[in-house]
Amino acid sequence: MGHRMETHSELLVYIENRADREPAYAITREIWNKVIEAGLPVKAAFHMDTQPDFSDLGRADVFVGSGFDTERLRLHAPKLKIIHCTSAGVDRYLPLDWLPATACLTNSSGIHADKAREYATMALLMLATRLPKHLSDQRAHRWDPSLSGVAVGLRVLLVGLGSIGSAVADAARILRMPVEAVTRHGRTSTQVDRVGTIDHLHDFLANTDILVLCCPLTTETHGLIDQKELASMPTGAGVINMARGPILSTQALLPALSSGHIAGAVLDVFDTEPLPSDSALWDAPNVIITPHVSCDTPSGYTERSLQILKRNLARLVNDTGGFENVICPVQGY
Amino acid sequence: MGHRMETHSELLVYIENRADREPAYAITREIWNKVIEAGLPVKAAFHMDTQPDFSDLGRADVFVGSGFDTERLRLHAPKLKIIHCTSAGVDRYLPLDWLPATACLTNSSGIHADKAREYATMALLMLATRLPKHLSDQRAHRWDPSLSGVAVGLRVLLVGLGSIGSAVADAARILRMPVEAVTRHGRTSTQVDRVGTIDHLHDFLANTDILVLCCPLTTETHGLIDQKELASMPTGAGVINMARGPILSTQALLPALSSGHIAGAVLDVFDTEPLPSDSALWDAPNVIITPHVSCDTPSGYTERSLQILKRNLARLVNDTGGFENVICPVQGY
Repeated sequence: MGHRMETHSELLVYIENRADREPAYAITREIWNKVIEAGLPVKAAFHMDTQPDFSDLGRADVFVGSGFDTERLRLHAPKLKIIHCTSAGVDRYLPLDWLPATACLTNSSGIHADKAREYATMALLMLATRLPKHLSDQRAHRWDPSLSGVAVGLRVLLVGLGSIGSAVADAARILRMPVEAVTRHGRTSTQVDRVGTIDHLHDFLANTDILVLCCPLTTETHGLIDQKELASMPTGAGVINMARGPILSTQALLPALSSGHIAGAVLDVFDTEPLPSDSALWDAPNVIITPHVSCDTPSGYTERSLQILKRNLARLVNDTGGFENVICPVQGY
Repeated sequence: MGHRMETHSELLVYIENRADREPAYAITREIWNKVIEAGLPVKAAFHMDTQPDFSDLGRADVFVGSGFDTERLRLHAPKLKIIHCTSAGVDRYLPLDWLPATACLTNSSGIHADKAREYATMALLMLATRLPKHLSDQRAHRWDPSLSGVAVGLRVLLVGLGSIGSAVADAARILRMPVEAVTRHGRTSTQVDRVGTIDHLHDFLANTDILVLCCPLTTETHGLIDQKELASMPTGAGVINMARGPILSTQALLPALSSGHIAGAVLDVFDTEPLPSDSALWDAPNVIITPHVSCDTPSGYTERSLQILKRNLARLVNDTGGFENVICPVQGY
C-alpha cells in the first residue's frame, strides 16, 4: 500500500506531437482535457518532437506519441511505465530491445475499424468493377465499356484477421463475397468461411480472386507476397495492400501487372513513404495509389486513441495491471 | 374467343441483336431457349440490326432489341403488340409518336439493381475518401495524405427514386449516410429519410454533401442540374451521375470543378456516348469517368431482361393484359 500511495502522487504524461504531421492528428490540451477525466491524478506536458524537453522526459511516467525516436526514450526516459503509440502499426519500433524493462509499449489497434471497413469496401468494388482499367482508359481518353463485373461471388483472401482484417471481412460479407483468411495461428473464426495457417498460403491463393493484406509487418510477413505467391493466383486476380509496404514485393508486382496476370492493385502502403516521385508504381498499369489513408481518418482519431490510454492510465493509477493493447515483445504486435 | 384462338396460332418474336454491341449482351438462341419456356406458342427469329429482315418484321407480333431504329418499326412492323427494350433507359425513343397504336413499349427497368447498388457504394466511398484528388495526385507523382474522410454521416440527395434510386438508397443506408430524395411526385418512402418534389430541389441541394442523379431523362429532367443548382450546394460537395448525361450540364460542371466548389464527380453517362476523345471532361480535375457501366453487368443480364418479356408473353398469349414495365407515353418512363 505504501508503494501505491507513492505512485499516486501525480503521474507525469509526456505528450509528443510531430511537427511534420497533419494538425488534425495533434494531441491538443483541449482534446486531452475532453478525454482524460479530471479525476485521474495525471499531469500532461506537451512538447514537439523537434524540441524535446529532457527534464520532463526524465521524470515522465507515461509517453504518448507516434513515429517517435526509440533511442531518445531509451537514453532519457528511465521512469516510463507506459509508452502509448497513437498508431496501430508498431513495426518501426521492432525489435523492442530498446524498451525499458519497466515499460509496456501499447498501440492504438482497434480504432481504425470504421475507416478500414469503408476503404476495404471501396477497394474491393474498384477491383470488381475494373476501375484501374477504366482509369487507365480515362488517361488515354479511351472509351471501352467491355469490361465490367460485379463483386458478388468473387473470392476474397485476407492475410491477417486482427481488427483491420475483421473490418475487411465485414466489408466483403456485406458485398456477398466469400471470404477466407490465413493467420499465424489458423484459429477458426465466425467472421470468415475458412481459416488456415500461413504455411497453407499457396493453397488458398490458388482459389483467390482478390487478395487483401491486412496483417502486421513482422519478420515473418516481410516479403510474404513475392513472385511465387502472385503466380499462384488465378490470372486476372487483384491485390489490395492496406497493411505495410514490405509485405508485398514491388519488384514482383510490377511485372505481374504489366503481363496482366494481376489485373489490378489498390495500394495504400509502400516500402518508403512518402512514395518517392520516381517510383515505377505511380505509372504502372492498373494500379490505384492512395497515400496511406486506408485506416486513418482525422475525425475523432486522437480521441479514440486517448480512450485506450485513459483506460490504461486508470489501471496504472490503481495498480490493477492488465493493460490493453500491449505489444508482445516476441510476436511484435 | 375466336379472336383469342386466332392470336394463339403462334406468335412471331423478332429478335434484333446489335453488331456494335459487346457479344456478352447478345440474345442468343441458347439463352432464349433457356429462359422462354417451350410451353409458350412463340417462334423466335434472330436478325442483326445491320441486316434487317423486312418480311419477318412485317409478320412479327413482338420485337426485342435495344438501341433500335424506331422509324424502321413504324414503317415495317405494323403488327407489333410488344416492343421489348433490353435497356432500362428509353429516352432515345421519346416522344413515342412512332409507336404503333396497337403496341406497348416495355423496358428492362429493375434488372440493374444489384450492379447499381455496388456502383453507388463505390462512387459514394470514392467521393468520401477524396479518391478523385488522390488520383490527380497519382498522375502528378504527388504524395498528399492530408485529405481523407469517412462516408458515415455525409448527406446524400437522390434525384429519382425508381429501381436504381432505391438501390442507391440501400447503398447509402448501409454506409450510414443520411439519404433524402426528390422525385416527381414527392411521395414519402421508407427507403429515405425525407422526400420532396422536384420544385424543392434547391432547398435540398443546400444541405447535400453528395448528389446522386438516378432519374429517367425526360423533358423535365433535361438540364435539371445546371450552374444555379451546383452553386446551391455547399462548397466541397460531390456529384454522381448514373442516370443520363444531359440531366447534368457539362458546361456548368467544368468550372465548378476547376474552382473546387464541386470537389469531385463520378460520371458514368454523358451527352454523347462514347464520350468524344476531345471532351474536356477526360482531363478535368477531380473527375472519375466510367464508360456507362454503372448499372449493367453482362453476367445474367440478358436472362433477366428476357424474364420480364417471358411474363409479358404469357399475358399476351393468354390475353390477360396487365403487361409489366410498360412505358407511359405521357411520362416517358
